[in-house]
Amino acid sequence: MSNSFGSLFKITTFGESHGKAIGVTIDGCPAGIEVDESFIQSELDRRRPGQSKITTQRKEPDGYEILSGVFEGKTTGTPIALVIRNTDQKSKDYTHIAKSYRPSHADFTYQEKYGIRDYRGGGRSSARETAARVAAGAIAKLALRQLGISTQAYVSQVGELKTEKSYLELDLSKTEDNILRCPDESVADDMINFIDQVRKDGDTVGGVITGVITGTPVGLGEPVFDKLHARLGAAMLGINAVKGFEYGSGFEGAKMKGSAHNDLFEKQGKEITTKTNLSGGIQGGITNGQDIYFNVAFKPVATIMRDQESVDQDGNSTTVSGRGRHDPCVVPRAVPIVEAMAALTVLDFYLLHQSTVLKG
Amino acid sequence: MSNSFGSLFKITTFGESHGKAIGVTIDGCPAGIEVDESFIQSELDRRRPGQSKITTQRKEPDGYEILSGVFEGKTTGTPIALVIRNTDQKSKDYTHIAKSYRPSHADFTYQEKYGIRDYRGGGRSSARETAARVAAGAIAKLALRQLGISTQAYVSQVGELKTEKSYLELDLSKTEDNILRCPDESVADDMINFIDQVRKDGDTVGGVITGVITGTPVGLGEPVFDKLHARLGAAMLGINAVKGFEYGSGFEGAKMKGSAHNDLFEKQGKEITTKTNLSGGIQGGITNGQDIYFNVAFKPVATIMRDQESVDQDGNSTTVSGRGRHDPCVVPRAVPIVEAMAALTVLDFYLLHQSTVLKG
Amino acid sequence: MSNSFGSLFKITTFGESHGKAIGVTIDGCPAGIEVDESFIQSELDRRRPGQSKITTQRKEPDGYEILSGVFEGKTTGTPIALVIRNTDQKSKDYTHIAKSYRPSHADFTYQEKYGIRDYRGGGRSSARETAARVAAGAIAKLALRQLGISTQAYVSQVGELKTEKSYLELDLSKTEDNILRCPDESVADDMINFIDQVRKDGDTVGGVITGVITGTPVGLGEPVFDKLHARLGAAMLGINAVKGFEYGSGFEGAKMKGSAHNDLFEKQGKEITTKTNLSGGIQGGITNGQDIYFNVAFKPVATIMRDQESVDQDGNSTTVSGRGRHDPCVVPRAVPIVEAMAALTVLDFYLLHQSTVLKG
Amino acid sequence: MSNSFGSLFKITTFGESHGKAIGVTIDGCPAGIEVDESFIQSELDRRRPGQSKITTQRKEPDGYEILSGVFEGKTTGTPIALVIRNTDQKSKDYTHIAKSYRPSHADFTYQEKYGIRDYRGGGRSSARETAARVAAGAIAKLALRQLGISTQAYVSQVGELKTEKSYLELDLSKTEDNILRCPDESVADDMINFIDQVRKDGDTVGGVITGVITGTPVGLGEPVFDKLHARLGAAMLGINAVKGFEYGSGFEGAKMKGSAHNDLFEKQGKEITTKTNLSGGIQGGITNGQDIYFNVAFKPVATIMRDQESVDQDGNSTTVSGRGRHDPCVVPRAVPIVEAMAALTVLDFYLLHQSTVLKG
Repeated sequence: MSNSFGSLFKITTFGESHGKAIGVTIDGCPAGIEVDESFIQSELDRRRPGQSKITTQRKEPDGYEILSGVFEGKTTGTPIALVIRNTDQKSKDYTHIAKSYRPSHADFTYQEKYGIRDYRGGGRSSARETAARVAAGAIAKLALRQLGISTQAYVSQVGELKTEKSYLELDLSKTEDNILRCPDESVADDMINFIDQVRKDGDTVGGVITGVITGTPVGLGEPVFDKLHARLGAAMLGINAVKGFEYGSGFEGAKMKGSAHNDLFEKQGKEITTKTNLSGGIQGGITNGQDIYFNVAFKPVATIMRDQESVDQDGNSTTVSGRGRHDPCVVPRAVPIVEAMAALTVLDFYLLHQSTVLKG
Repeated sequence: MSNSFGSLFKITTFGESHGKAIGVTIDGCPAGIEVDESFIQSELDRRRPGQSKITTQRKEPDGYEILSGVFEGKTTGTPIALVIRNTDQKSKDYTHIAKSYRPSHADFTYQEKYGIRDYRGGGRSSARETAARVAAGAIAKLALRQLGISTQAYVSQVGELKTEKSYLELDLSKTEDNILRCPDESVADDMINFIDQVRKDGDTVGGVITGVITGTPVGLGEPVFDKLHARLGAAMLGINAVKGFEYGSGFEGAKMKGSAHNDLFEKQGKEITTKTNLSGGIQGGITNGQDIYFNVAFKPVATIMRDQESVDQDGNSTTVSGRGRHDPCVVPRAVPIVEAMAALTVLDFYLLHQSTVLKG
Repeated sequence: MSNSFGSLFKITTFGESHGKAIGVTIDGCPAGIEVDESFIQSELDRRRPGQSKITTQRKEPDGYEILSGVFEGKTTGTPIALVIRNTDQKSKDYTHIAKSYRPSHADFTYQEKYGIRDYRGGGRSSARETAARVAAGAIAKLALRQLGISTQAYVSQVGELKTEKSYLELDLSKTEDNILRCPDESVADDMINFIDQVRKDGDTVGGVITGVITGTPVGLGEPVFDKLHARLGAAMLGINAVKGFEYGSGFEGAKMKGSAHNDLFEKQGKEITTKTNLSGGIQGGITNGQDIYFNVAFKPVATIMRDQESVDQDGNSTTVSGRGRHDPCVVPRAVPIVEAMAALTVLDFYLLHQSTVLKG
Repeated sequence: MSNSFGSLFKITTFGESHGKAIGVTIDGCPAGIEVDESFIQSELDRRRPGQSKITTQRKEPDGYEILSGVFEGKTTGTPIALVIRNTDQKSKDYTHIAKSYRPSHADFTYQEKYGIRDYRGGGRSSARETAARVAAGAIAKLALRQLGISTQAYVSQVGELKTEKSYLELDLSKTEDNILRCPDESVADDMINFIDQVRKDGDTVGGVITGVITGTPVGLGEPVFDKLHARLGAAMLGINAVKGFEYGSGFEGAKMKGSAHNDLFEKQGKEITTKTNLSGGIQGGITNGQDIYFNVAFKPVATIMRDQESVDQDGNSTTVSGRGRHDPCVVPRAVPIVEAMAALTVLDFYLLHQSTVLKG
């Protein structure tokens, strides 16, 4: 509890970093969605380790198998089970932490909560689990594509380096043009070089990912606790290493006055729209048809290639050394995860909205 | 859907701003909690309109009545229903928006989503609904008090003005000493004067509330989607006017390196603790026994005492004038709401944690 | 937990028999349903005590008040709260069981589960709680009426006396023509006289209610655990005093051979229908468009007007005497409860079905 | 929706009869349960096809693989994924029903609900799905065993033939002594011969399974909608082919008088117990510590080895011939399914009960 996400499009992920497999079941996928299997793989590839010099060098091909719920290329409305076998685990890398706690990891809290933990590769707390989310998110994206809704994300900050441009000033189709997934070419190289230097120092660094959802109709979101941004925020905060979420004007909005912050309505053609969009596409928790945009803050990866003081299970002092193959910065590989969680959130609200009025 | 919050300690709020009443049902309140009715009233009083010159001047006494679930002063484990009658509605103040949309309010999105809305006072989208959360939160606080857990909050920023002190440097027992609920006396007066000036200008301003949860045992929080901070974030983002949430190092953490960010373990007496707490008391989504602290960003109140361009339901241009009695800044009255949502979140996780292992 | 029923049309009931009030909140009622308040009252009147010589003589007018969720006569999509004040409690009738356990009541189990109980009138375990279900069910019926779906029930058995006619051979519009709510005039009087005799003997008797749901479209029901009849069964078994549920051929079906039991398909006009309906309108958990019919068995009321041996909270032997005003047979007043639970179940599945495919 | 069962011990099954695999994920399994893998296999073997002359002759070894959630032989509190590969599908047996509807099967309703169906072997509507429940139920049984709780079932009726003995008069340890799983040796042979004759006639027959749950503590069950027997009933009614459920006195109880039906309390040693148990171990929806017993009615298997009139997808008349390898009577193989669903239900309530009061 709770390894499930969603109300009507409900996913449950499973699997440990060094167990036999990770995977996901989707209960409530609408029937009749065309399942483009190569698209799912391409999304997994975007999250895969070993894709560039600024990511971990682990080799996980992350091939997947769909066990159920798809017939002759289409979803049937029955549960989709999708499994990704683990293949490149080097569990020996982790024997040193079988009884010791890595700083700012979940070793201590899992041990205390459950009285038992699979320490290999971080077990269930490993970000490897997010591959299952990306696979499920790919299927959600395929459904949203039919509706003209897209969820996109990109790296907007690494350490202190950030793009000064808003998403409206960037060409998001260029996100995949560099290994960082930052569509602002004027800063991407500096960021990449910075990460590379941090890596050589045996250190890690945090960053920010910006997400953009376009094409949503008016009316998605459920007052009062399940405002669209509340669940979207939970979706993002549920990603490993995330420390903050803001949407629309965000924390900057707290500094503003109402006279400057309000989005005035106007009519454009047949549509009621707003002149500005500090609301971030959501008013009263419900989409107003404008773009939804948001920022997600990631802390630096906890595993560093340095010795750190710590304690073991009995509280004795010990030293934990950085081993294994790890990311110096999580954001390049987290871009597809942010997109996936956004897609899962929006699709679920879309289905919920279909029950707002009776269709006779 | 979904006006409910929580898994085991589950509340459902109801009511519109100018309807007969607002209220809440609590399903899953543990049996045997002593219900201090005057404490519940005192919490409602902290949120009540008309409490100072920097809040709305509406007069809502917010007296409440418990209809069920309490017997001889204690909870019985059956649902608690609590009703707060509406008494000071001036619905005439709202006839001008029966068919027009106030900028950055939920008028448009509710109308489009449901095809009908109670426009009086914003109806269901009014922040009046949060009184029901405060009442439920008060009962959660009473339960948490038995466990030595407290949830506190205070105003840390108004517009551009902010305290430079961390919660550790402040005496939170002084939060109620001024009408702003900012325990940093060195900035509170400036903030109050600023809000008062904004009010005189017919404008509004945003702000930030900081929350602190102390006394949690190790082990609260449910991987992977229901990390404690994910649900806490959703709880906060579900409060009206909230645009952002961060915990621990937050957005600042995105700028840092792992070597500086990691919290090293050490043993203090019999307890395993951490030397620093940039994690904000949560690792891998699960409490580690340290303080949980977080920031919540509120946008400026959308209702300003000025004329604003807008459109009506048919898309015709119109002007919306500010009327009624509104807050120039939401944060002073939002402090108890933040505390209430934190209490509801933590208590729910506490109960969930009781099912982590079988008790024979 | 769990005083809620339903997934999308979700009700939560509250209240104790002798507390201030009972009531219900409905979260997820579709917007735009016309709320016929007199119909709701008429449904409550059908369940009300004191309506005839074969029911309890308690006087509970069961007037109700809607606090929220309805605006200008229509539902708004926001939560509906409905409260029924308690008025005719004679709590003194119950002081003798404050510490003693009535046989086959819930006194013992509530006390052991919660460590506390409101003993007055059975507290939360009283069938008085079902009035809230009837009120919520009335609103569900109003929604279903728009869709051409009806849920009806009638008494088909009292003790050993039963109608030999199937629902197809009866005119259900005559159900309300006698105080028993049995549309088979050839047995109704005998049943009524039998109940009256049982009452004079200070005893009680069980019975069976038959339910019929007509007008459902093909496709309602969710495999595999939430088959329509599975949730319908849970709905019925959740009514006080119910000991059994069967639908379609039911327990008789267990005696049959497949060659006799199978419902052969045929085309009638443009519709695919079945020649027989031993399936009871549900195949694979999903409605096939035929009538749904089912039986619900009620045990005899536990409170009898005789002395019974029992024990008190400390396990000491004691005698419990029948006091208060009780029903000699529960089925006449349970008819509207069965209808209400059926309506709540079907409407919820109707809404769920609206999410089976994406509507673009 | 909804292929999940349970609130805290929550399972989600997946898979089609002739797809790659079926399986289950368990979210919320308590940590520290010893996983006896051979026990799980032995439970699957009890449900497996081809086990005797009175079951289908299909050969499905039903070997399984656990992918996650178990470490060094114990559950870790993280999701358990368990997969059973399909191996003996003869999908060609089903091409004749790709566009035709088998009587009293789910072909028609699935097609109409989803607009698409995997017709091979019945797809998702096949009882093959229940193997996943048996596997999950085996893990629940292992958890319950630690608590001294057992769930047992046996065949009590086949067609018109039934045992006249109550469960108290039978030795349930003999259930596995014959291929029917009926511990009453005086009728088992007759029942077996009857099924064999029905099989030779190309026909099928229904039956009844009786379940018994022993060792539950007082206090399991959640008022008011989730009474223990309400969810237990839903669990049973969710099994393929089930038409009815009754517990305790059941439908017989409807004929009785209160003076005969009430279970009088008495003290035995330190325990408060009841002299009789017509309540079936549950009062007010909550266990009272006595045995829980119940009956489940199964209709005859719909696939018969005879030609039957039907229609195709377009409504044209057609003939459906019985093909494939099917059970003449479902009850022998359904015994472990009934036990599994009972175990899943009770364990879930056990965990829920752990949250009834705060543990400080």
